[in-house]
Amino acid sequence: MALEEATIRYLESQSKGRLATLGRDGRPQNKPVGFRYNAELGTIDIAGFNMETSTKYKNITIHPDVSFVVDDAIGEGAENMRMLEIRGRAEQAVADSEQGASVSHLIRIRPRRLISWNIGEGHPGLYSYDAD
Amino acid sequence: MALEEATIRYLESQSKGRLATLGRDGRPQNKPVGFRYNAELGTIDIAGFNMETSTKYKNITIHPDVSFVVDDAIGEGAENMRMLEIRGRAEQAVADSEQGASVSHLIRIRPRRLISWNIGEGHPGLYSYDAD
Repeated sequence: MALEEATIRYLESQSKGRLATLGRDGRPQNKPVGFRYNAELGTIDIAGFNMETSTKYKNITIHPDVSFVVDDAIGEGAENMRMLEIRGRAEQAVADSEQGASVSHLIRIRPRRLISWNIGEGHPGLYSYDAD
Repeated sequence: MALEEATIRYLESQSKGRLATLGRDGRPQNKPVGFRYNAELGTIDIAGFNMETSTKYKNITIHPDVSFVVDDAIGEGAENMRMLEIRGRAEQAVADSEQGASVSHLIRIRPRRLISWNIGEGHPGLYSYDAD
């Protein structure tokens, strides 16, 4: 389960993405979220205000398959668009806060498949690979 | 099937969102897309380069339920974040180009449920409603 260097560099340059989960009814839901790449575990860690009471946090216990997309534009037009979609399985996790005084509830994604557009010098345009 | 005025104003102020569909395998996929609000039909119309050969365009014929999210930040922090999630059913559609010389393939979403954050003067914070 290894992400390529260019994927990691892009993830480390960004802080926001959109997380698609499946609701209890099996239909998709989609929310903007903050994230960080967890280099130690090779996962995407998503935190947020009141995470532990959010619907998305409950959704993943029923349907763990998720899709997380990060994108930005470095200029006008499709040739200056960058995109990374991470499909994988999500789980509830807990992280110690930086002060150590409290815990933070996370959605942690273990990447399964990566689909990218214009990420990494060697791969202009569409580039996909499996992480596991 | 009517969207509220504040919802429409927000949609008309934005041009990009992220579309969650279900793949053939029933797992979520998520992509950045351009869109416009179709005032005549009350729908979200999503176009794009090579739309008719894209996976998302095929996905909706098998699983028509989608979630489309539009968000932006008008300052720092959660209180300056705005978000509109549109859940609904998607269908393939065709639009004449502005020149009339060709057609453009679209994903057209008929809104079912709206979930918003900080959209509209009368509704700071979380506000949801059904469109149908």
